[in-house]
Amino acid sequence: MILISEIFGPTVQGEGALIGVPTVFVRTGGCDFRCNWCDTLYAVEPSFKQQWQAMTASQIMAQVQELSGGMPLLVTLSGGNPALQPLGELLQLGQQQGYRFAIETQGSKLQPWFAQLDYLTLSPKPPSSGMPFDPARLQACLQAAGEQTEVQLKLVIADETDYQWAREVAQKFPEVPLSLQPCNLQAATPDQPEQEADLTQLNAQYRWLVERAGSDRWFDARILPQLHVLVWNNERGV
Amino acid sequence: MILISEIFGPTVQGEGALIGVPTVFVRTGGCDFRCNWCDTLYAVEPSFKQQWQAMTASQIMAQVQELSGGMPLLVTLSGGNPALQPLGELLQLGQQQGYRFAIETQGSKLQPWFAQLDYLTLSPKPPSSGMPFDPARLQACLQAAGEQTEVQLKLVIADETDYQWAREVAQKFPEVPLSLQPCNLQAATPDQPEQEADLTQLNAQYRWLVERAGSDRWFDARILPQLHVLVWNNERGV
Repeated sequence: MILISEIFGPTVQGEGALIGVPTVFVRTGGCDFRCNWCDTLYAVEPSFKQQWQAMTASQIMAQVQELSGGMPLLVTLSGGNPALQPLGELLQLGQQQGYRFAIETQGSKLQPWFAQLDYLTLSPKPPSSGMPFDPARLQACLQAAGEQTEVQLKLVIADETDYQWAREVAQKFPEVPLSLQPCNLQAATPDQPEQEADLTQLNAQYRWLVERAGSDRWFDARILPQLHVLVWNNERGV
Repeated sequence: MILISEIFGPTVQGEGALIGVPTVFVRTGGCDFRCNWCDTLYAVEPSFKQQWQAMTASQIMAQVQELSGGMPLLVTLSGGNPALQPLGELLQLGQQQGYRFAIETQGSKLQPWFAQLDYLTLSPKPPSSGMPFDPARLQACLQAAGEQTEVQLKLVIADETDYQWAREVAQKFPEVPLSLQPCNLQAATPDQPEQEADLTQLNAQYRWLVERAGSDRWFDARILPQLHVLVWNNERGV
């Protein structure tokens, strides 16, 4: 059984190399991390467990098919940390029906079914998250990807310390396409579900990141905002 | 000699499949079109000719090198319509120095040097532009791309008529990756250089486009805003 926090869409992927691609999100419940600025605490904090549903692969695909009107599209597995769940059967079943699968995970845990994925986005957490980073574990995740799996790194940047860390990560993994993403420090939280993201601040941080990378002549990292936050702010289910 | 309106950067590409990629823009002067909602009239209207500069390929590359500190990156050729200019020598010179080249053109005119490009973005204009669309000409442009040239279509959508037109274009060219882009109806113009884009309206139009394509189960087109407008509004030189 797979622990599910929410399934929604079709909408568009708001982050990373697949930005703007139509997708249905399958968000799993449960995480081995607790980032300082987590924007999906309802899929992370154990206190929300009663809102998560244990589902089978075919129950999940039935819901994805209903949302997509049976027309295959990209399914994005997110969390929490979806790499904690047994997703091999879901991938097999969905791919048989023509769906493609992307996962978003921090790279703290690897699974043999990473090789079945169409897209693997590894998003190791920067110092500002308060979480540890283990390059050897990230390397193992990269190696677990299959021949046909498109891999990317996505690094969230809240400040100069995070930026310098990202430079080091990029130097350690020069062969992996990478995108940098400004950190939303005003995500909605269970305590403050109506919290609005500060778009002025987010835009200023995006511009800072473009200038910062430019001043280092760091031209092989893409710089992308959280598109869904610019368009829908902190709204859930989009 | 190449007619140049402006050269600026490094910044990021704000549109299409290369969104977020660091780049220097080389904007040529002169256009065979005059779209109703053109956002770069200063590179289109003949009355701005005295602001355009005739430059050689090596003069242009000298300026690109200065802006990029000699570190190769993506150079984006835009306009006006850059396909009106003799750019073959520029491509050869820049690529020898390690730079990659993308062009943004409406597909009304093709050039043999299209085959030298790293990226060819064809942006045929929708009905709301007031300009004609010739599918045969677009097909010829696609055929002019080389084996190594990555091709994409980028279609601007202002309304339902444009949307239906885009559906037809997509059906005619199913093999070409495509992105849809909401139209900025409040671009700055020479008469109103301080005009601000209406971000609330642009976001509403983006959301409409996501819903519209979703309701048709049209999942193989990316939907992307003009990122630079969301981040820098109508500012020039970013």
